[in-house]
Amino acid sequence: MSKKIFYTPGPSGLYPGLEKHLQKALEEHIPSISHRSNHFRGIYQDTFETLKSLFNIPQGFAVLFTGSATEIWERIIMSCVEEHSFHLVNGSFSQKFHETAQQLRKNAHKIEVPMGEGFELNTLEVFYKSELIALTHNETSTGVSMPTEDIHRLKEMNPNKLLAVDMVSSAPYPQLDFNKIDMAFFSVQKGFGLPAGLGVWIVHERCLAKSEKLSNAGFITGTYHRLSTLWNFFEKFQTPETPNVLGIYLLQKVAADMLKKGIKQIRKETDEKAKMLYEFLEQEEGFDIFVKNPAHRSSTVIIANTGFQSSKLIQKLSEKGFEIGSGYGENKDRQIRIANFPGTSQAEMEKLLDAMKKLRGSI
Amino acid sequence: MSKKIFYTPGPSGLYPGLEKHLQKALEEHIPSISHRSNHFRGIYQDTFETLKSLFNIPQGFAVLFTGSATEIWERIIMSCVEEHSFHLVNGSFSQKFHETAQQLRKNAHKIEVPMGEGFELNTLEVFYKSELIALTHNETSTGVSMPTEDIHRLKEMNPNKLLAVDMVSSAPYPQLDFNKIDMAFFSVQKGFGLPAGLGVWIVHERCLAKSEKLSNAGFITGTYHRLSTLWNFFEKFQTPETPNVLGIYLLQKVAADMLKKGIKQIRKETDEKAKMLYEFLEQEEGFDIFVKNPAHRSSTVIIANTGFQSSKLIQKLSEKGFEIGSGYGENKDRQIRIANFPGTSQAEMEKLLDAMKKLRGSI
Repeated sequence: MSKKIFYTPGPSGLYPGLEKHLQKALEEHIPSISHRSNHFRGIYQDTFETLKSLFNIPQGFAVLFTGSATEIWERIIMSCVEEHSFHLVNGSFSQKFHETAQQLRKNAHKIEVPMGEGFELNTLEVFYKSELIALTHNETSTGVSMPTEDIHRLKEMNPNKLLAVDMVSSAPYPQLDFNKIDMAFFSVQKGFGLPAGLGVWIVHERCLAKSEKLSNAGFITGTYHRLSTLWNFFEKFQTPETPNVLGIYLLQKVAADMLKKGIKQIRKETDEKAKMLYEFLEQEEGFDIFVKNPAHRSSTVIIANTGFQSSKLIQKLSEKGFEIGSGYGENKDRQIRIANFPGTSQAEMEKLLDAMKKLRGSI
Repeated sequence: MSKKIFYTPGPSGLYPGLEKHLQKALEEHIPSISHRSNHFRGIYQDTFETLKSLFNIPQGFAVLFTGSATEIWERIIMSCVEEHSFHLVNGSFSQKFHETAQQLRKNAHKIEVPMGEGFELNTLEVFYKSELIALTHNETSTGVSMPTEDIHRLKEMNPNKLLAVDMVSSAPYPQLDFNKIDMAFFSVQKGFGLPAGLGVWIVHERCLAKSEKLSNAGFITGTYHRLSTLWNFFEKFQTPETPNVLGIYLLQKVAADMLKKGIKQIRKETDEKAKMLYEFLEQEEGFDIFVKNPAHRSSTVIIANTGFQSSKLIQKLSEKGFEIGSGYGENKDRQIRIANFPGTSQAEMEKLLDAMKKLRGSI
């Protein structure tokens, strides 16, 4: 099979060096070790410490593993909400988080803005009884991102509510101040460039306290993956079930590679590549940046309306070895989505834009 | 790192040829493809068809994917039990299934026998109101297995109750008649010799009907992984969340390799290796087969009491490159557990027994 480069915002390209780590994992028999062994505990602890450094996570937080970020939506609502949750909805994924709360029969309140728009904090009123505010830092479906300052201010405005940040398609890019949020989560197949099948939940002990309060009051908070059970196992650097051991091992390796490169450098490069992409889309005929407000434009998932059937361009690019994403849902054939994750180099991005420029003319 | 052979009943040795499949997966960019693409749908469908052949699954069943078999315990209880479940408990894993139902506030009834024993069907009375019977074909903690004829008879005796078979540490060995059960499930890191992080739920549409009945009546049956949602996506060969795509791909490859070899042949070899192991443990000084009743002895997880600290033998074997399991829980240091999975050859088993014989003397 020919060489391909993935610029897709779903599962994406593998992080540079991943195949080497995978080879090493096989040599070390990582898929065969017991999840109750000291070997595994060491891997979990290393992963915890590495992510702590990468995200600058202060004391009081645990790092927990699930099968997906979708699972974390469910675990958050079950473990941390008795009656009222509040959701900032501006796309398909924030909407699904809201639906998760509804399916669990919570009073799931929401503020909703049209696709492609972000939130204005000055007019944003959170329902006073809400126990949890759920927001999506980066809406994969619309390419709208919430400035981290706004996230922090939202917590300052609502100090007694738990704040959950979905950073599925932006981690590790956003410079979150973990002193000003209660939890954040992501899955590994996007910014970290790993095979899918692992969700990562960074969660403060305030959330654990809430979960235990609910359990003690007789609420169903879940079983093997309720927050209190996950946390008890985390204290021994274990997991309730046999987890995705290989995925956790690889996450540690990639996070360590990122640390070595420097998170500042990764953010800088991400900004530079994003600037290049947006400038291209602005200048190039046939493309139109979807998110109008520059302050709300994502740096990691860049979306353009196309003045032509986007599937034609996507197909032509694919034939040349460039894989980009289609629009999401009903925008499938009139938008393109390009992931700007840390694993994609400046040179690879330039190659993509060259190809887009060339192929655009032949549609 | 030196060559090691894993005979462990947790995660176990990789199935022969797995590294080659993994290499192929990387060449085909499997970790980067979209889970909404036709490529992924094809992989899911192939996996479904291959498992259907391997397990001889009739019409009316779906094959669904979760993060672990532990997750499936939770999904079964949430999706298929309104009030009463009934559990056959004879070890730590069947007990955890029972606890899962309790944590979900069901009336979780049980019949319990001591560790190392199985069930006598003639005296087994299932609480009449039970909607579901949960049994563990192979108790990984005790090495007790339930004869498949007994499983089928239990369903015949209780035709109106759903029967769920945990075959985590025996699949694909047991020759289950899927016409006489309602669901069965396993995880891939045992008999299939794959990296952990994927649960497989083979489930009949009778269970879906029950789940929909509960949903319609207003019960909380879950969110993205409730049975009805999983099933709806299955019908398009998709999953609600980004699944462990690589794991599903590898499962198909290993299941196809098993089919090629022949499931009859795999069962025959498993029986022969099990016979050899039990004969060794019977004859060799210092070992004592844990399960007294030969009819209840597992063919895939073989457990012996040791007349010495088992950790000493396990350590000495490990130094020579043979990894076997310790006893489970409180039996940790007075038992050994040896997995007899399809990936382990007769020759490898002979080597292990030779090493055990030699090293036993030096303890």
